[in-house]
Amino acid sequence: MNFGRMSAPMSTHGVKDLIRVALGEAKADLIIENARILNVYTGEILDQCSIAVKGEKIAYVGDHTSRMVGPETVVIDAVGKTAIPGLIDGHTHMSAIFSLGDFLSYAVKSGTTTVITETMEPFPIMGVEGVEELMDSFENQPVKIFGTAPAMVSTSRSIMGISSKALKKLIRRNDIVGLGESYWQAVLQQPDLMIPLFNETLRAGKTLEGHSAGAKGNKLSAYVATGISSCHEPITAAEAIERLRMGLYVMIREGSVRRDLEAIAEMRSTGIDFRRAILVSDGVDPEDIIEKGYMDYVVQKAIRCGFDPVSAVRMATLNVAEHFRLDGFVGGIAPGKYADIVLIPDSETIEAQCVISSGKPVFRNGELLAFPRSHPYSVKCRRTIRLPGPLQPGDFRIPVANGADTRSVRLISLITDLVTKEVVLSLPVRKGEIGTDVDHDVLKIAAIDRAHRPGKLFTAFVRGFGLKSGAIASSAAWDTSDILVVGTDETDMARAVNRILEMQGGAVVCAHEKIVAELALPIFGLCRLNPCPCSMKRRSESKRRRLNLEQPLRTRCSP
Amino acid sequence: MNFGRMSAPMSTHGVKDLIRVALGEAKADLIIENARILNVYTGEILDQCSIAVKGEKIAYVGDHTSRMVGPETVVIDAVGKTAIPGLIDGHTHMSAIFSLGDFLSYAVKSGTTTVITETMEPFPIMGVEGVEELMDSFENQPVKIFGTAPAMVSTSRSIMGISSKALKKLIRRNDIVGLGESYWQAVLQQPDLMIPLFNETLRAGKTLEGHSAGAKGNKLSAYVATGISSCHEPITAAEAIERLRMGLYVMIREGSVRRDLEAIAEMRSTGIDFRRAILVSDGVDPEDIIEKGYMDYVVQKAIRCGFDPVSAVRMATLNVAEHFRLDGFVGGIAPGKYADIVLIPDSETIEAQCVISSGKPVFRNGELLAFPRSHPYSVKCRRTIRLPGPLQPGDFRIPVANGADTRSVRLISLITDLVTKEVVLSLPVRKGEIGTDVDHDVLKIAAIDRAHRPGKLFTAFVRGFGLKSGAIASSAAWDTSDILVVGTDETDMARAVNRILEMQGGAVVCAHEKIVAELALPIFGLCRLNPCPCSMKRRSESKRRRLNLEQPLRTRCSP
Repeated sequence: MNFGRMSAPMSTHGVKDLIRVALGEAKADLIIENARILNVYTGEILDQCSIAVKGEKIAYVGDHTSRMVGPETVVIDAVGKTAIPGLIDGHTHMSAIFSLGDFLSYAVKSGTTTVITETMEPFPIMGVEGVEELMDSFENQPVKIFGTAPAMVSTSRSIMGISSKALKKLIRRNDIVGLGESYWQAVLQQPDLMIPLFNETLRAGKTLEGHSAGAKGNKLSAYVATGISSCHEPITAAEAIERLRMGLYVMIREGSVRRDLEAIAEMRSTGIDFRRAILVSDGVDPEDIIEKGYMDYVVQKAIRCGFDPVSAVRMATLNVAEHFRLDGFVGGIAPGKYADIVLIPDSETIEAQCVISSGKPVFRNGELLAFPRSHPYSVKCRRTIRLPGPLQPGDFRIPVANGADTRSVRLISLITDLVTKEVVLSLPVRKGEIGTDVDHDVLKIAAIDRAHRPGKLFTAFVRGFGLKSGAIASSAAWDTSDILVVGTDETDMARAVNRILEMQGGAVVCAHEKIVAELALPIFGLCRLNPCPCSMKRRSESKRRRLNLEQPLRTRCSP
Repeated sequence: MNFGRMSAPMSTHGVKDLIRVALGEAKADLIIENARILNVYTGEILDQCSIAVKGEKIAYVGDHTSRMVGPETVVIDAVGKTAIPGLIDGHTHMSAIFSLGDFLSYAVKSGTTTVITETMEPFPIMGVEGVEELMDSFENQPVKIFGTAPAMVSTSRSIMGISSKALKKLIRRNDIVGLGESYWQAVLQQPDLMIPLFNETLRAGKTLEGHSAGAKGNKLSAYVATGISSCHEPITAAEAIERLRMGLYVMIREGSVRRDLEAIAEMRSTGIDFRRAILVSDGVDPEDIIEKGYMDYVVQKAIRCGFDPVSAVRMATLNVAEHFRLDGFVGGIAPGKYADIVLIPDSETIEAQCVISSGKPVFRNGELLAFPRSHPYSVKCRRTIRLPGPLQPGDFRIPVANGADTRSVRLISLITDLVTKEVVLSLPVRKGEIGTDVDHDVLKIAAIDRAHRPGKLFTAFVRGFGLKSGAIASSAAWDTSDILVVGTDETDMARAVNRILEMQGGAVVCAHEKIVAELALPIFGLCRLNPCPCSMKRRSESKRRRLNLEQPLRTRCSP
């Protein structure tokens, strides 16, 4: 397998092979016989079809394959099974704490053969070189992974926006299919910064991914008028419908960060067309992918929410492919497309029994048949914790000059995992500094720059985190490239950060000056290199702020 | 109006204007109020909508436009009207005997605001330069015209295929959206010639237009596997369905050459999805466009054939735009798209009462408001009849050596306007040559090369043409760049061709050595420069071989 040129045209030689097989003049490499096929183009479910594959692509679909079977042809009898196109996740974030190999194994088992991911995370750490390294690690894997170039990187103004020059380099890449999410407020506020990036992308014939969380009416129109063509942020049926009416591709999230499918599925009652509706994960945690699955779970849930199976499958195949202009390559079972095919028991049961990716059986009878390639990451992307040296507890002190007993302090109050609120509290001053107040769940939180001005540190207060003693730190902290640490005392905070420095990336829990738990994340300080060592348990949804080592700390404000 | 960069991104300045209007911070240039909108994205018909336009594009769609109305804003009250997107013809041949201005006036009146045309015709005459001149004549007109680069030019082997170098030059153009029709037999027979052209096109992110007339099953699969993504040749519902299932965009023809809509509309009964069905003309004669209209007629006929209005409109708007990857620009009424809007009485009645093209009212209350630009054609494209000198009657003689009374001759037998058959007949020999036999409708037909080996001439016989005396000649004779002449005697044949030489292109009828009728076609020898002088009468469908000066002679073989 080689997906390095996965959206590039085939060689003349390869096309001639397909022609010969289709005409019955040469033998197929693989034939799936007697399947029912869910035809995403016409919306039909067709009985008794066979699919002939040569190399990575489909040569023929129909019922005349007998002349294509040779002694070397692998024949899969799919009688009683339904064939659907390989599933596509149209929006995710692959710079997660997975090792790539872990993720890919679960993706394959779920029948997901194409993934489109944001690439913003390594950008503030390593610039274009980081994005290129990330994209290179996706090449020649059992799942096709396309990226969108980072647009804004962060809501933090200091690292917002990438240069036109950097974008020019990325957007030329075959495996970069668009410009990643750009937040609507920032686009409307800074068109001079963003529109040149949009135009660079449009000139390359690629798409602009939107992010219009909370926008509506005039503001949404203004944002859409800039040329963006998708949004993955609606959380209600009304928001989804408003976006569909404006011609956007609406991405419905059902992943670890947001689960919007059930609410948005209400739009079924309006009878509108779903050709521009897309199912996406927007990122999955390891425990979710292990327990629930991946795009198989999402499509199944769509069916459970009342979408008919053809619509549900289309929302994770053809519709996505059309949006990203990849429909000449993936998203349907037809001659000339990649042979990405999933056999399921029936169209209502999205359970991958056999997965073909680029013409190769990669999963069958519960067994993984193709293993992710181990990528030789550069030294540079494994040395991203560029602190000048270990921190001291005193680095987290917040001294105050005058002798007052209390001090009025602005702090971060956690409302949910995703939503924070500004609160002003009066905190006691002791020995000339403001300390934590564990009884009232007021802890210190610090951000330590590891990339731009390494070692630059800012300490503040957070309420509602729930830690009773010690500290927790992580170098994976969307959407900043800083190390974040929360703690009840400065010694454990320093210890936790210093362990991250030693590991060159990771998440660490420290209590009473001892490391209690740690997870190495050596790739960009964001991703694992090796498979996950820990068995992951079901997360209780009600205990939503339970500490979860498998999840990067999230501290962004509500959109 | 300037469409020279019609599929290029807007300037930052232009985008900022749209943003300001959408937010109500600036005034719109044009507002359409109180319309019902046929929303092609969701399939809904929405009441009481307003559309705000700034410059060429839509800034806002909704019901909050009061702050966008200024003293300069043109306000159209569309109460009781339905707004649909400007119609698109997805496949036509614009190198027809129209003057461009004539065609565009009728296109505008029909609510057609975008046309995608083949450009093969001038290629054998003037090469890339001819295609560029044709495309240049389309710029800055009241209708957007995109071209597909010529793929094969002709079924005649001598002028088949264009060079990769020529294609490279054309495919870069902003107004060239794909590679034009390539005949399936030729592609399967000569993949080494065609696939490099396909790949050049795919690398530019553009589409491959197919031409799979008569192909089915394995052969159709083989052709589709080469990467082509449309076909405009199905003539039955079964052919259309087979192509849709293979993921092709199926173009249904309803024009002057073919009228397939009624037959193909039978596919409605299967309940399949029409998202990849497209309505096209494949070329209209002047009399058809005058009498019936253009895309308004085609969409109306689709509704009469039982398609619901939303599907019918989509087949001439969104579906076409998606196929050509122009859906960011045209094909729907949404912020950021060109303001191409047609007001019709109701969704069942496709009658353009007001047409907005790129934000400008171009037709209203029966009156044309924007006039086609007169293009300053180069001298070169007006000097394409490169014969070394006038022909003599003797040039059409067919002498035979021996003294037999009869001679067995292969001749062209006309079956229909489009279909010919090879016939072998015994013809009398008189004075050492084979002559015409008007009583048995056996006439002489000659092709005179005017481009490649000017003056090279070949004379043969044709049966079933119906001419009783004189000759008829034309320099517009798809798919060859030759002058074709049919005649009962050699003197009139020479006279007719010589008149074409004098006019530098045209169609001429000559009888008894006098010019009886003529039509100058000075542009490439194919198109008129000035508006049509003649009033055109309804053509009787039953008299299909009646001589028709408005129609190029068609002599190609059945596909």
